Amino acid sequence: MAKSISIVEVGPRDGLQNEAHEVSVQDRFQFVHQLASAGLKRIEVGAFVSPQWVPQMKGSAELINQLNSQAKSFAKDVRFSALVPNEKGMQLAMETSIKEIAIFGASSEGFSKANINCTIAESFERFRAVTKIAKKKKIKVRGYLSTAFGCPYDGYVDPKVVVKLTKDMLKLGIYEVSIGDTIGVATPAQVEEMMTLIKRAGIPMKKVAMHFHDTRGTALANVVVSLKAGVQTFDSSLGGLGGCPYAKGASGNLATEDLVYMLEGMGFKTGVKLESLIALKQKMDEVIGRKLPAKVSNAGLPTGYPLWG
Amino acid sequence: MAKSISIVEVGPRDGLQNEAHEVSVQDRFQFVHQLASAGLKRIEVGAFVSPQWVPQMKGSAELINQLNSQAKSFAKDVRFSALVPNEKGMQLAMETSIKEIAIFGASSEGFSKANINCTIAESFERFRAVTKIAKKKKIKVRGYLSTAFGCPYDGYVDPKVVVKLTKDMLKLGIYEVSIGDTIGVATPAQVEEMMTLIKRAGIPMKKVAMHFHDTRGTALANVVVSLKAGVQTFDSSLGGLGGCPYAKGASGNLATEDLVYMLEGMGFKTGVKLESLIALKQKMDEVIGRKLPAKVSNAGLPTGYPLWG
Repeated sequence: MAKSISIVEVGPRDGLQNEAHEVSVQDRFQFVHQLASAGLKRIEVGAFVSPQWVPQMKGSAELINQLNSQAKSFAKDVRFSALVPNEKGMQLAMETSIKEIAIFGASSEGFSKANINCTIAESFERFRAVTKIAKKKKIKVRGYLSTAFGCPYDGYVDPKVVVKLTKDMLKLGIYEVSIGDTIGVATPAQVEEMMTLIKRAGIPMKKVAMHFHDTRGTALANVVVSLKAGVQTFDSSLGGLGGCPYAKGASGNLATEDLVYMLEGMGFKTGVKLESLIALKQKMDEVIGRKLPAKVSNAGLPTGYPLWG
Repeated sequence: MAKSISIVEVGPRDGLQNEAHEVSVQDRFQFVHQLASAGLKRIEVGAFVSPQWVPQMKGSAELINQLNSQAKSFAKDVRFSALVPNEKGMQLAMETSIKEIAIFGASSEGFSKANINCTIAESFERFRAVTKIAKKKKIKVRGYLSTAFGCPYDGYVDPKVVVKLTKDMLKLGIYEVSIGDTIGVATPAQVEEMMTLIKRAGIPMKKVAMHFHDTRGTALANVVVSLKAGVQTFDSSLGGLGGCPYAKGASGNLATEDLVYMLEGMGFKTGVKLESLIALKQKMDEVIGRKLPAKVSNAGLPTGYPLWG
């Protein structure tokens, strides 16, 4: 097992994008700043998507420029990224000081059609166009593969298809693929199977991140078996930001606090201050206007924490 | 790994006892009946405690007699049990048709004092008196060890103490000890350590049950490592009945639906119909007057369920 685990904080993008309440650029700047202050090093902060379709991500260009212009107030190794769906989005991203982007595709045709309105094959044509530009500009590209364990439209998803798509993404020069259980259906058995297939395909574990949703309570159980297989990077969302767990689709993000609590309890180093996350979560409850579901923040740290080590 | 997992449903006792709303004997009878109809075979239905201290358990004697008198309407292998704190409770239990009881102790002095108002050593004197009577009457005795991974008063709990107390309970003729993470603090590392110590002490895994609370989101992750160590019995509570997760003490019971969903997804047989649990949970929301937290019930079964196997 790795001793150090890398967390990709997706709250300011994947999280806020799935909340009904729109948060101003100024509040999002504060949010990202506090996440970084808590020790998070990789933060997804925005998306270059149509503000008509996704009003929550309005002002992403402004936010990224603001963050980069104040780089001195962040630790040196903090990295910001933003989602880019297509060439048009890439053009917008290039007008900013962005250094890392993420592309996103689905593992199932049903979700690809519903979410990004194209077939999986067509989505890869977009990825190719975007990564080609990124390469020229020396912008790093991360990839998302959603509905990797089940699709709200198609049901079962073949893990062999997921592994093939992961390989295809990596071939485009994407440095890491985040494999997502978008609707939170996987149990540890399916994750173990996926890990076996990934290894068999010769994909290095350092190029794989796991993105679990806690829709059915299995997110941390799935993290445990991923850790055993050698995964070193996990996505999570402060407070569990990201939509109500009753909605179909992308809901029930794993809360960063819950992930950090478990990892630290298991002896892994995350570099994140749990107390700071808990304080920030209380603040975000007010910003968003609902009690976010993160269990560790809502229960508080136990008497005598840390209890071990 | 075992292929079949035994679930001890504690909703009607541990669950209801920690809910503010009092449920009538008639409604509790219906609840137990529906749990059994869903396939649950071991159900803790009441407690012989003072109705002044625990009004939620009022009428436990009546309930047990009613259940036993209608044995024909239950599957043959359904078993009911009730909590017995001391000799006085045992006398009350003996006036009923009860066939199985449970005794409960703590792993930490702070919780023992606060919860049952005696030292751990004193609690074992009570257990000795109760089990002596039970033996004569051929009544089976289950044991609970609470705060096994941490105490709301003392903080850290030494796992070696827990293993010693488990052995001591088994020596009294108790057929199974349920080791409880009462305040939901354990991560898989602590559970693995506990498992190693249990095996080293020569305690057979079939005499151990694990009782996890999901207070900090780790319950199912802890189930996974327990399964790998050979545990075959888990406690859970329909809907996650059992108090709000913000209270210190006994809160955040693992929901039976979430446990069953994961176990079945991992290829284990529970004998429980998940659809029936989900329907029953919606009913109990109304009985209790709050939305119980069980994730699987609140999210619903995924499209195409069961997705695997």
